[in-house]
Amino acid sequence: MTHPDSTRMTHDIELGPGSEFDLIRKLRHHWGPLAVSIGDDASILNVPRGERLVVSTDSALEDVHFRREWLTLREIGYRAVTAAISDIAAMAASPAGVLVALQLPGDLTDIEGTLLELADGIADAVRAAGTVVVGGNLARGGSAPLGITTTAVGSVFNPLTRAGARPGDLLYVTGALGGPAAALKSLTAGLQPNAKLRERFSRPAARVAEARWLAAHGAVAGIDLSDGMASDAGHLAAAGGVGLEIAIERLPVFAGATPDDAVSGGEEYELLVASRTALDEGEFKARFGIELTAIGRAVEGSSGATFTRAGKRVAAPPGYDHFSR
Amino acid sequence: MTHPDSTRMTHDIELGPGSEFDLIRKLRHHWGPLAVSIGDDASILNVPRGERLVVSTDSALEDVHFRREWLTLREIGYRAVTAAISDIAAMAASPAGVLVALQLPGDLTDIEGTLLELADGIADAVRAAGTVVVGGNLARGGSAPLGITTTAVGSVFNPLTRAGARPGDLLYVTGALGGPAAALKSLTAGLQPNAKLRERFSRPAARVAEARWLAAHGAVAGIDLSDGMASDAGHLAAAGGVGLEIAIERLPVFAGATPDDAVSGGEEYELLVASRTALDEGEFKARFGIELTAIGRAVEGSSGATFTRAGKRVAAPPGYDHFSR
Repeated sequence: MTHPDSTRMTHDIELGPGSEFDLIRKLRHHWGPLAVSIGDDASILNVPRGERLVVSTDSALEDVHFRREWLTLREIGYRAVTAAISDIAAMAASPAGVLVALQLPGDLTDIEGTLLELADGIADAVRAAGTVVVGGNLARGGSAPLGITTTAVGSVFNPLTRAGARPGDLLYVTGALGGPAAALKSLTAGLQPNAKLRERFSRPAARVAEARWLAAHGAVAGIDLSDGMASDAGHLAAAGGVGLEIAIERLPVFAGATPDDAVSGGEEYELLVASRTALDEGEFKARFGIELTAIGRAVEGSSGATFTRAGKRVAAPPGYDHFSR
Repeated sequence: MTHPDSTRMTHDIELGPGSEFDLIRKLRHHWGPLAVSIGDDASILNVPRGERLVVSTDSALEDVHFRREWLTLREIGYRAVTAAISDIAAMAASPAGVLVALQLPGDLTDIEGTLLELADGIADAVRAAGTVVVGGNLARGGSAPLGITTTAVGSVFNPLTRAGARPGDLLYVTGALGGPAAALKSLTAGLQPNAKLRERFSRPAARVAEARWLAAHGAVAGIDLSDGMASDAGHLAAAGGVGLEIAIERLPVFAGATPDDAVSGGEEYELLVASRTALDEGEFKARFGIELTAIGRAVEGSSGATFTRAGKRVAAPPGYDHFSR
């Protein structure tokens, strides 16, 4: 242990000799034009003049965030990077690049094959979000499970924050909810979810362009639903110092999922936004091919998120509390 | 596994309920003014007008990059964050913030105590570098070893890159080398290194201000010595398409270390730079309290880094190859 079993990914410049750099060279070649401006101790990026920098980091860990038997390596790479991009998308930022820190098990035999499959998924994710890989790190050893920590970097002129909601704002949600939760229920029970649910779980989309449209058309606060509607609506309410009233029967439910999945399921990258003005759902659907649905409003008081069914308040499933299990 | 055992660190805004957020609240309180602008799906930062963004990510993993019996948790947190800051410092960037993704073992009992000790070290590192924590992630579970993946974000007007060296440039190194390698030799042999060597290993400094001074005074290429002089001089040579000739007897050796430690030891955050003009070693020492030493020059050809002793070329210890052990 006189030296780390780890190396930063370098790119675009000549690399020194050694098998670790061979792996990086292979990743570089594999990614082609999807990996740019990597090539030094650090990577250099330009932020458009007048825009602010937006950064977020997110980890996906084997047997904590995913199971190898449920997803291919390519899907694992895709989901990990998409989750991080979703965090900056939720602020209406345009991604400028991602850095991917890969952690490989010490007893992994097919290092190159594993890396290239993960790399395919990472490529899928940055391609889908219109961005590139700008850096990373490779570490291997010990009892480490497979892990991907992604930092997404982007920029925005007018960020959509969690704290922007005010009483009277209208609440909207993109897409349809509960699909990932329904897929996970099947997988946990040892069953295969149907193809659409499986796809929904394995290939979520970060709503990059959608968030920018929403921010440009009146949205003043936003959050992605990675913790699920019940939990994330609570975050939006707490951050804004407002109450949120959401009609459960208005929540768009993904085909094959239940309303409960839609309320409490997480791993969802749809957006919940508060808008000062009414948004044009038809234009949104025409432009992005997914629904935009009005689901409630922000009210006075610090009452958190409350859910109604047929006008009556119902107890929402509690938000998931990761550290209390 | 219907939801991740993981959460992003949020800050500066009201958080929702739950024990995971209690931990983040405690970290926030613990860090005080050293944690800023965290508070949403992502964090928002300003890049000074005209400057370019510099980002780098680096992982420190238990039993790969550190051993618990060798370092306190506070030192582990410090070193991990300092290593990442060193990567952007080597490009002469000013740090704007770090994001820290913490990975905790699933069987850890004292989660809060562990987090707060790591947090103290992270605070030491950002304080030493004149920066702050701007985001992070908390994940726990399974067989995961303790891990810290740090992304350092900064900005620079004129970056110092690996590729800038040209034939005729003078080579300089900051500080004294080999201390961390000597400390590791003792630790690996089950011995305690002396206090100065231990301190050198456990509390390295990222040369943030030094790199900016060097870039302002004629340095045109730079790299930190995290892989050791032999390996990193090779990277600088390869990136610039030049040869580097380094006189081993000129290398400044840390007290208690050997010249071999100075040539081949890594985990070193001193800087190797190529400068177009002669640099004022006296002014450097007066300003920063450490040596700046001229150790050789860049020459024509792609001969990599070559080392001489008394004018004769010697075989340098090979750079460490992480993936071929």
